[in-house]
Amino acid sequence: MSRTLIRGGLVITASDEMHADVLIEDGRIAALAASGTPAARAFTADRTIDATGKYVVPGGVDAHTHMELPFGGTFASDTFETGTRAAAWGGTTTIVDFAVQSVGHSLREGLDAWHAKAEGNCAVDYAFHMIVSDVNAETLKEMDLLVEEGVTSFKQFMAYPGVFYSDDGQILRAMQRSAENGGLIMMHAENGIAIDVLVEQALARGETGPRHHGEVRKALLEAEATHRAIRLAQVAGAPLYVVHVSATEAVAELARARDEGLNVFGETCPQYLFLSTDNLAEPDFEGAKYVCSTPLRPKEHQAALWRGLRTNDLQVVSTDHCPFCFTGQKELGRGDFSKIPNGLPGVENRMDLLHQAVVDGHISRRRWIEIACATPARMFGLYPKKGTIAPGADADVVIYDPGAEQVISAGTHHMNVDYSAYEGKRVTGRVETVLSRGVPVLTEREYTGRAGHGVYTPRATCQYLT
Amino acid sequence: MSRTLIRGGLVITASDEMHADVLIEDGRIAALAASGTPAARAFTADRTIDATGKYVVPGGVDAHTHMELPFGGTFASDTFETGTRAAAWGGTTTIVDFAVQSVGHSLREGLDAWHAKAEGNCAVDYAFHMIVSDVNAETLKEMDLLVEEGVTSFKQFMAYPGVFYSDDGQILRAMQRSAENGGLIMMHAENGIAIDVLVEQALARGETGPRHHGEVRKALLEAEATHRAIRLAQVAGAPLYVVHVSATEAVAELARARDEGLNVFGETCPQYLFLSTDNLAEPDFEGAKYVCSTPLRPKEHQAALWRGLRTNDLQVVSTDHCPFCFTGQKELGRGDFSKIPNGLPGVENRMDLLHQAVVDGHISRRRWIEIACATPARMFGLYPKKGTIAPGADADVVIYDPGAEQVISAGTHHMNVDYSAYEGKRVTGRVETVLSRGVPVLTEREYTGRAGHGVYTPRATCQYLT
Amino acid sequence: MSRTLIRGGLVITASDEMHADVLIEDGRIAALAASGTPAARAFTADRTIDATGKYVVPGGVDAHTHMELPFGGTFASDTFETGTRAAAWGGTTTIVDFAVQSVGHSLREGLDAWHAKAEGNCAVDYAFHMIVSDVNAETLKEMDLLVEEGVTSFKQFMAYPGVFYSDDGQILRAMQRSAENGGLIMMHAENGIAIDVLVEQALARGETGPRHHGEVRKALLEAEATHRAIRLAQVAGAPLYVVHVSATEAVAELARARDEGLNVFGETCPQYLFLSTDNLAEPDFEGAKYVCSTPLRPKEHQAALWRGLRTNDLQVVSTDHCPFCFTGQKELGRGDFSKIPNGLPGVENRMDLLHQAVVDGHISRRRWIEIACATPARMFGLYPKKGTIAPGADADVVIYDPGAEQVISAGTHHMNVDYSAYEGKRVTGRVETVLSRGVPVLTEREYTGRAGHGVYTPRATCQYLT
Amino acid sequence: MSRTLIRGGLVITASDEMHADVLIEDGRIAALAASGTPAARAFTADRTIDATGKYVVPGGVDAHTHMELPFGGTFASDTFETGTRAAAWGGTTTIVDFAVQSVGHSLREGLDAWHAKAEGNCAVDYAFHMIVSDVNAETLKEMDLLVEEGVTSFKQFMAYPGVFYSDDGQILRAMQRSAENGGLIMMHAENGIAIDVLVEQALARGETGPRHHGEVRKALLEAEATHRAIRLAQVAGAPLYVVHVSATEAVAELARARDEGLNVFGETCPQYLFLSTDNLAEPDFEGAKYVCSTPLRPKEHQAALWRGLRTNDLQVVSTDHCPFCFTGQKELGRGDFSKIPNGLPGVENRMDLLHQAVVDGHISRRRWIEIACATPARMFGLYPKKGTIAPGADADVVIYDPGAEQVISAGTHHMNVDYSAYEGKRVTGRVETVLSRGVPVLTEREYTGRAGHGVYTPRATCQYLT
Repeated sequence: MSRTLIRGGLVITASDEMHADVLIEDGRIAALAASGTPAARAFTADRTIDATGKYVVPGGVDAHTHMELPFGGTFASDTFETGTRAAAWGGTTTIVDFAVQSVGHSLREGLDAWHAKAEGNCAVDYAFHMIVSDVNAETLKEMDLLVEEGVTSFKQFMAYPGVFYSDDGQILRAMQRSAENGGLIMMHAENGIAIDVLVEQALARGETGPRHHGEVRKALLEAEATHRAIRLAQVAGAPLYVVHVSATEAVAELARARDEGLNVFGETCPQYLFLSTDNLAEPDFEGAKYVCSTPLRPKEHQAALWRGLRTNDLQVVSTDHCPFCFTGQKELGRGDFSKIPNGLPGVENRMDLLHQAVVDGHISRRRWIEIACATPARMFGLYPKKGTIAPGADADVVIYDPGAEQVISAGTHHMNVDYSAYEGKRVTGRVETVLSRGVPVLTEREYTGRAGHGVYTPRATCQYLT
Repeated sequence: MSRTLIRGGLVITASDEMHADVLIEDGRIAALAASGTPAARAFTADRTIDATGKYVVPGGVDAHTHMELPFGGTFASDTFETGTRAAAWGGTTTIVDFAVQSVGHSLREGLDAWHAKAEGNCAVDYAFHMIVSDVNAETLKEMDLLVEEGVTSFKQFMAYPGVFYSDDGQILRAMQRSAENGGLIMMHAENGIAIDVLVEQALARGETGPRHHGEVRKALLEAEATHRAIRLAQVAGAPLYVVHVSATEAVAELARARDEGLNVFGETCPQYLFLSTDNLAEPDFEGAKYVCSTPLRPKEHQAALWRGLRTNDLQVVSTDHCPFCFTGQKELGRGDFSKIPNGLPGVENRMDLLHQAVVDGHISRRRWIEIACATPARMFGLYPKKGTIAPGADADVVIYDPGAEQVISAGTHHMNVDYSAYEGKRVTGRVETVLSRGVPVLTEREYTGRAGHGVYTPRATCQYLT
Repeated sequence: MSRTLIRGGLVITASDEMHADVLIEDGRIAALAASGTPAARAFTADRTIDATGKYVVPGGVDAHTHMELPFGGTFASDTFETGTRAAAWGGTTTIVDFAVQSVGHSLREGLDAWHAKAEGNCAVDYAFHMIVSDVNAETLKEMDLLVEEGVTSFKQFMAYPGVFYSDDGQILRAMQRSAENGGLIMMHAENGIAIDVLVEQALARGETGPRHHGEVRKALLEAEATHRAIRLAQVAGAPLYVVHVSATEAVAELARARDEGLNVFGETCPQYLFLSTDNLAEPDFEGAKYVCSTPLRPKEHQAALWRGLRTNDLQVVSTDHCPFCFTGQKELGRGDFSKIPNGLPGVENRMDLLHQAVVDGHISRRRWIEIACATPARMFGLYPKKGTIAPGADADVVIYDPGAEQVISAGTHHMNVDYSAYEGKRVTGRVETVLSRGVPVLTEREYTGRAGHGVYTPRATCQYLT
Repeated sequence: MSRTLIRGGLVITASDEMHADVLIEDGRIAALAASGTPAARAFTADRTIDATGKYVVPGGVDAHTHMELPFGGTFASDTFETGTRAAAWGGTTTIVDFAVQSVGHSLREGLDAWHAKAEGNCAVDYAFHMIVSDVNAETLKEMDLLVEEGVTSFKQFMAYPGVFYSDDGQILRAMQRSAENGGLIMMHAENGIAIDVLVEQALARGETGPRHHGEVRKALLEAEATHRAIRLAQVAGAPLYVVHVSATEAVAELARARDEGLNVFGETCPQYLFLSTDNLAEPDFEGAKYVCSTPLRPKEHQAALWRGLRTNDLQVVSTDHCPFCFTGQKELGRGDFSKIPNGLPGVENRMDLLHQAVVDGHISRRRWIEIACATPARMFGLYPKKGTIAPGADADVVIYDPGAEQVISAGTHHMNVDYSAYEGKRVTGRVETVLSRGVPVLTEREYTGRAGHGVYTPRATCQYLT
């Protein structure tokens, strides 16, 4: 048996802060003891990490990544290998990536393909959601099977007609099924049918640059789709998780539904909290770096997102990590914003940016851990293995230096992409050491992990329902 | 050093459930270890409690009790001795009682009087809020002092003109002060000026029985006062805690304010969750047993309260324990409901009734602990000593048998009052053993505590603000 | 020149009630004079109608009829001849019927076909809306032309996929066009894509009777579509008129939008105000008589509709007159509710039923005229010719006996349909005499009109915008 | 019999626009005829006014004036003589002024005093509301008597403690009484108790200038009081009319209540529509000219008021005309804003400013007449004598030149006050000729009226209830 002891840090979970020593046995949290007590002093270990003056927090759970996603004729530039390594550098020890069903193919085929991409390549643990692009009788039956084997959430798109798009009938059927089998529908909520009209009109007017991407994908059309998804879920008697919420009006729809007592949840992402249409408007096609959907919004929307995170109308911050290099990939959309691959890199930056939110006074330390670790774990059935530091949990642990200063930059990041969306941003706080199931994958900012350490982690159904 | 070990139970906190052994050293939680691990097996103790098949939960924190309260010419029938003993029987290990400022007297005088009542008499730990009946320049200065010495919350009344009532100017001034000194204003939100008109009119019409108490204290007038208190707090830039929320319309006002991002909190009580105007209408003056203010509401309101507890628009369940014997006390109001002493017994029943809510599917186990232990502790500055089971916390621990059946009855309860508001109600779950700072006060349902064990616990300011 | 004088009645318009004599010259209102004044005594005429004790009100404007509509393999049973004659009997002197574009055909073809059906056959004046089933570049251009020639409103369907259905992109395009050309989009707001899933599932479960029609077409799905239409109109910068609003939740969406200042309007129909799912549940397939879409709702919804009419969140009451005989037509859906032709007869009953609402205290007399005459005229560009009694207006005048009692029955009505949706209902008030452009078409309850008297009336654009 | 004929104008009422000749017989509207018809040509008269190219509109009804009001040790500077003459110049032919009950005195005494001030002095017709400062058993009985004799509305103040202030119990009692006797409670909705705390604190901080008047009378405290008044009215089952609504948040409370179907009404005034805190901040104590309560708000609030007027959440625009000269009166508050007499002149400007709102596109012509003439008449029981041009109505008629240009100025106005709140403002439109009961009081901008022409006009109860 291997034993690791983390001494003297401030352990932070979603609900507690404690000066405690953490004892790890064989990859799991075995015990916590109040630092300095006889009980703590009695702990012995093969290896001791001194966390004095540091935070000891659960490894991050990023519930929304797209490694190697095919999109618009190219692929997201992070493989599972490079992407999970970057995740580890950023203090994230579990990702939930999206396997994709292609139209005309089975869920199984898509899932198998994604397993093949990930297996043996990951630095940290991983799991899968399933993108459902083709709801039919066979797909619905497959959903049951997937839930049983640990793929318990299914993403549908109200946008991207002809690619991922599901119509309201397909959505309703999938929701009804999930109401029965315990799956959770995740929704990309934008009225893509209406947006495509606006895209066509904008291009016809010669509005072809990145900032027009933000203009045509209107906040009202995100809010409309959010409302529609909520009502369809209500008809189906199913819970709903809305991904990458970006607009004030969409948060309002979630708040209204939650006030009615519906099991409706919302995720936002760091890019919506820290970036804005100002970035999309950067000259020399630089705005393309910030093209994602839902799009960045005017700065005024950020206040609603922070408020939603505080009031729990938004529960989770994930990254929607989906990097495309500026050179050769984002450039595909020069002269036509609709051809810019949609997505931003971020898996490495999330924990730091949210700690910065603590420093800035937006959220408390416990809320930081809740939205970045505990709730995503619970929402997607990974609890209590992931998302907390408690006896019995996996020893996915981050030693975090709350006082360290760093500057985010493509020059120093570990994601496989040639730019950073946060280039030059100064943040306070830094990941020092990361354990994945007790194994050091980052050791005082030296990478000590390996491809293949991370294992596939089947999930239970949603543990967050009221 | 004394060591106690609780083996084999399911430890439940506001955020975690873990099969863990709990080690107590000198009255504090020293360590937790996953049951069955080497780390757990290494624990040794003077005394071991077998909790196999049981829950191990934090001792309850009842943030709203009125021991020995003078009201309407009589006194609440529980002394600090009898009341805290009953609390212990019910798994509550901390109460926050209300010291009372009388009009024309200082806060200090009131606080001293309440210290004198409690000191040396309590079975479990206690703290004080301060009822402010007379806001003036001197009182405002005293508020600062009290916050410094650990009385960090102040209750005001929008009801009971001539007794506890504060007008909107007095409320605004107190809120402004609390915005500066970190105190938290607790509000009895009923428009007492308007209600007293309705009381007078009802009595003039010969409507003198207990059920008319419920009719004149209208839900709309609770909601109005709730809204008013919220807006005054918004003007003052202060947080607000509304006590004993009972009406659908009042919950809606809280939800609206919270959607706007205001630091507004709501407490409800078991009587509003489990009783109704049907009880007030019981014949032979039996309805008097259920007279409290805010009053019991028609059954339809219960759904809104449960929903509020699930959506966190309500954060705390306290008891407003304020017992008056039917014989000799409640009877003072025969022929005039306005003379019935207001209040219900409940300090002993809260943890069980809320566990029943878990059994009934209203809330999860973690939410049970959150609303009954963790949030009241945080709301009133008792965290992390109270409200959780974590290294470093006070060893206020309840061994709870989730499968035991019991029937609530005045014949078996330990409160000093001649009736039970829940007479004959069957509930599943029962407190077996209770530790207060590591000392057994209830041991396998034998009372092993003593008056004077409980100590006064000064409080920090509110730890629940976003 | 012909002159008709109506003496001694109470003239009621949308804003005034006056004891006045009405002088008609050559088919138009020439003058009003206070009864008994020298000015009134100076009026002379060829023909004098004594209206003492009666109301003198504008002829009704029914903005939603479907004469001879092809639906589900059959045709609405009233022709323009029988339908407009029944309208005259019921005090309605203008109908706005719906010309239909078939998929693959032009608006012009549809409009020409409807002109051919109506021309020379109508007892009272008529105009057309255009149902747009196939939005494309050509259709959009035709919309401009139609607006210029007096067809200034366009109906789209969010229901009936494969028949009338438009997707959100087609809706957005049509709305954008109407924002430019002044047309008004009328929306059948039900999420037909989702409803068709529920229909299929209900039939598969063997739920084939008329009451299941009401169950699958859920109020939530009406409200969802209403909300969606509102937001699409907001994106387009266009006004919106929602037809046949039936559900509490849909009224709430309209109210919310109007509170935001949007030009959003709602119509309801007598069947939603007076009938309910109780009728759909009538045994022996009798429920089929009440099958229409949006469907009848549980009785509780009626209060929201009446409230909407009082608060002006609903502005118009039309009939959606679309009769199908029980025998031979409604019966097509025995064993499969989805095959029951959708529609109810009502053009003859509207003015009486709304007068009954006056008697019942739901609305005032002036509001009766406003929702049944003035606002539909203004909403659809017929003002000031239609909808009021004022100098210069067409002399479409009804002499109404407010004290007469009648019983609605298929045995006595004049619509070409073998049942009445209000069979046996007693109402107070009755149309006595009806003038269309000064010509008596009903004379003391004797039909004195003729097919071909009624003329096509081109319309201006909406006159109701704020 | 005298006959006056107004030829060729565009007659505008709340619901109709008609090219019509208006025949007046003995001071009342006898007849209207479509211009150019034989019926119109048949009209004969002693005196004919050519209104070609002009509007012919009902005389304005200003439902909120304070002639000679004692306030803060001085008196409003317009007497009934000067004030009603100015009203006539401005196209207003009826005012409803406020008689005042002083604390300790009867309603009757107050009413008699106001009759004495007005009788024989007025240029146009007048009526009275009653300010109730002292609700007691006697007052409540007097309310019944006043309603019977034509004083059918009662104003209460939630502001001005110690002067006009009523507490919530007094308000509730008066509302209950009005629910029975048909009276309408008018509310000055500001939380004066809280505001007085803020006033005292501001003065203590040395914030003594006019702009601080606007800062301490917070929008939130107007909205709070508005909400409270609404709920008290709901408890009483009474309608409610909120005077001088100025804040976005207050409009929102009215909108919410109206969506619930409550009979709640709101009035705003030109000063809130056209002026702002920018005026209060004018240097050299000039801001004092704009001190009134509710106070002027930041410009952003104007949009909500215009929207409220369009959506009918606000129904009436009155002036709250209460002039105090800058020299000698407003100056009383130099060094202490709380001593500046509250009130603005405006009775002469209202009709023009609202016509400017038509020109600016805020409202339609009919809505102009509705909010300035028809609805105030109906709201306060003056219909159909006042507020419309219809057979039988009083011949209070304004010939309005919609194209004339004028500049508002104290140099040219007729109010007895040494400044204009709108000094230098250019407006399009001007009153040319004014008839009061058929008698010319302004003739082509020459004053032809006389003190004493105007008569007291008892009122019916509210005619605006749904």
